[in-house]
Amino acid sequence: MVAVTQNLENTIDELRTLLGDRVSTNKTVRDTHSRDESWHHPRQPDAVVFPTSTEEVSDIVRVCAQYNTPVVAYGTGTGLEGNVVPHRGGVVVDLENMNEVLRVNPADLDCTVQARVTRKQLNEYIRDQGIFFPIDPGADASLGGMAATRASGTNAVRYGTMRENVLGLTVVLADGRIIRTSKRARKSAAGYDLTRLFVGSEGTLGIITEVTLRLYGVPEAMASAVCSFESIKGAVDTVIQTIQLGIPVARIELLDDVQMDAVNKYSDLTYPVKDTLFIEFHGTDNGVTEQAELLQSIASENNGGEFKWTTKPEERTKLWAARHDVTYATKSIRPGCEIWATDVCVPISSLTDCILETKKDLDESFLIAPLVGHVGDGNFHLGFVIDRENPKELAEAERLNERLVMRALAMDGTCTGEHGIGIGKMKFLTAEHGDAVAVMRQIKKALDPSNIMNPGKIFSI
Amino acid sequence: MVAVTQNLENTIDELRTLLGDRVSTNKTVRDTHSRDESWHHPRQPDAVVFPTSTEEVSDIVRVCAQYNTPVVAYGTGTGLEGNVVPHRGGVVVDLENMNEVLRVNPADLDCTVQARVTRKQLNEYIRDQGIFFPIDPGADASLGGMAATRASGTNAVRYGTMRENVLGLTVVLADGRIIRTSKRARKSAAGYDLTRLFVGSEGTLGIITEVTLRLYGVPEAMASAVCSFESIKGAVDTVIQTIQLGIPVARIELLDDVQMDAVNKYSDLTYPVKDTLFIEFHGTDNGVTEQAELLQSIASENNGGEFKWTTKPEERTKLWAARHDVTYATKSIRPGCEIWATDVCVPISSLTDCILETKKDLDESFLIAPLVGHVGDGNFHLGFVIDRENPKELAEAERLNERLVMRALAMDGTCTGEHGIGIGKMKFLTAEHGDAVAVMRQIKKALDPSNIMNPGKIFSI
Repeated sequence: MVAVTQNLENTIDELRTLLGDRVSTNKTVRDTHSRDESWHHPRQPDAVVFPTSTEEVSDIVRVCAQYNTPVVAYGTGTGLEGNVVPHRGGVVVDLENMNEVLRVNPADLDCTVQARVTRKQLNEYIRDQGIFFPIDPGADASLGGMAATRASGTNAVRYGTMRENVLGLTVVLADGRIIRTSKRARKSAAGYDLTRLFVGSEGTLGIITEVTLRLYGVPEAMASAVCSFESIKGAVDTVIQTIQLGIPVARIELLDDVQMDAVNKYSDLTYPVKDTLFIEFHGTDNGVTEQAELLQSIASENNGGEFKWTTKPEERTKLWAARHDVTYATKSIRPGCEIWATDVCVPISSLTDCILETKKDLDESFLIAPLVGHVGDGNFHLGFVIDRENPKELAEAERLNERLVMRALAMDGTCTGEHGIGIGKMKFLTAEHGDAVAVMRQIKKALDPSNIMNPGKIFSI
Repeated sequence: MVAVTQNLENTIDELRTLLGDRVSTNKTVRDTHSRDESWHHPRQPDAVVFPTSTEEVSDIVRVCAQYNTPVVAYGTGTGLEGNVVPHRGGVVVDLENMNEVLRVNPADLDCTVQARVTRKQLNEYIRDQGIFFPIDPGADASLGGMAATRASGTNAVRYGTMRENVLGLTVVLADGRIIRTSKRARKSAAGYDLTRLFVGSEGTLGIITEVTLRLYGVPEAMASAVCSFESIKGAVDTVIQTIQLGIPVARIELLDDVQMDAVNKYSDLTYPVKDTLFIEFHGTDNGVTEQAELLQSIASENNGGEFKWTTKPEERTKLWAARHDVTYATKSIRPGCEIWATDVCVPISSLTDCILETKKDLDESFLIAPLVGHVGDGNFHLGFVIDRENPKELAEAERLNERLVMRALAMDGTCTGEHGIGIGKMKFLTAEHGDAVAVMRQIKKALDPSNIMNPGKIFSI
């Protein structure tokens, strides 16, 4: 313990030599970096550092490696599974100064950004060039953080997730080495796919400092619609048939009646309090019309109402802002509460069963948990509204979460579609991947033998 | 050396106990398994085995691991960079008995196949269900082999490569452990992306025995067109503008004048001997018409001729068969020759320059090398027509190949878009990836410490 304390003191001394006043041990700063947006209990780091370059991140990691000090990279802190909570203390590397768009290649439809550039910041930056970056997890997260957690969100059904949209990364490894995982070609068969290895590794293999991303031309036409259903089955069946028919819908989001009620109240809207789909179409004028007609007819067959259209940009923005504010809307159900957000993803043919069984669990429980989902991918979320100091509520959320996850796994799905493992889903990793987890550990040990990179996340070592 | 020989004898003895007459040391069988379709010099394995299950593959690898015997998985032998040439001898695992389609889930648009199912076999199997698997590298390769080399081909511009279309793998590791890399959800944020790690690892980390793949609904409308250009620049600029405009073309292939001449002669066709695009559109009737009109107008601006349409299935098949037969067409230029096939991929804005500079090299050389490419991805191939016993021709192909690769790398491209590193591109790996190659080696050492899995491919250890 004395050795640990001494190591920490040495780490902080050397970091001060390196960074001067860009090392903070201030309580407020440490407090800010002790949590994410989840219900998970905070833990203060011993210091927070603010590098300005990949080389400085490398120097910081070298110092931490020398003293076996944990290192946790921090973007916007908008994670939902405790992914950046430094629960073994150590140094948090806040990348807030690394927020520059480095290169935009409109002709190649790609760009390279520093890790702390957020998705909205990037889209603002490139808006005038008729291009955009579609991946949209709701929060205005950093692109480095989104890569680290393999984020996706509302547009993934059309454009894929960070897995498909990261072309390359600059990464600082556990011993301070700096690597570039890939050049800018759209495809390559040259060696192991290190890009995809670091995407989703949640900072446990290295710190992502730069991200090269695919971009897309802004479609000629975009239109959004809202459609209410008499039953959640009708809504989900509409989604399933849409996907099976290959209609290239850009977004297709389910909000259950509980969620719609919260959204109406929070965002001052007057939608029917019913199970509802929010839909968006991208394409040519004709293409969008064609898609919309097809989907409307599928919805009608499943007892859906008429589409309410929003085609003006400001109306579309308002609609999706309401969708994105579900977390805050859910929080407003019970002031002072925490939201235990969880997400699973299943093969699309099992989605109706998975949601109906889950709703049955919720109907029988004393906890409230609105349901919202990127259902086009087979992915949906629950937000358990809890007081995390109340053991009974925590235990009930844990029970329902476990039932949800085991149900998804039994349907050949995953314990998390997009939030990552972090702290919260660690116990399900082996249930999902079996012996493959041993291979993940072998890779972790090969690249971070002293276990200093975001230790205790994904799996304990 | 005595120890090596003894180890080999012990390996073969134990394999015979395990597999009986499904172990062959027959010269003809070993000869068949000594090569791929490339110019690379063959090397006979010491034995060839024919397992019937993942468990048998596991048993085989355990035996080989015990005696430090190299193991090379073999599918159809249609690789182009010596990827399966057992150039350190040992045991070739021919998966020809593992050719069963295990499960098709039309409702989820996915399927699971044993590794030796070929892409044509799969498409034949599912044809009646209105679904198809789009990845098409030309050869009727095995799906396990396609996963192992991260194959792509003509449809990748629309549907992605094996990287995007493999949902999960069953893999036998270097110590015989069997893992499943993923469940069937379309997306997941649960742990390291082992699927993508094994896709493209060319058998150096394990043997792929089962593959779960994405499938797609057969589009309502498909139409193909051929368009000749006055210059290669016009053809390539047409492609670039098509991609930049986001026209969702399914295939857009360039064949240069040299290649068209060979194709005409080999496939008994009468296309103009000019730089030519082969194009295919998938979508709704209206969508296809819309795409075709847009592309025709772009082509016209770049001095392209009229589109020659083929909409009937049998005509489309004939057209693409001619495209796929380019290797054989090229071989027929000079009977008895070998084809040194090489491929690079660059960001699309550099494609015209890359092709023009490459054509200039070829104009100044005594070697013939038709050019053909999946240009929508920025990917193109040369096929040097050589006598591999002629040192002067070999040296010239090597010189031209190196210039091509270094040019692509200088343009932020890759040394191989889809053929893999194998033996042929090993010397370019560090030029492309720099210090990241050390990370690949660390992973290789962690998962295959004795270096028995396809040793000496991708990098030497």
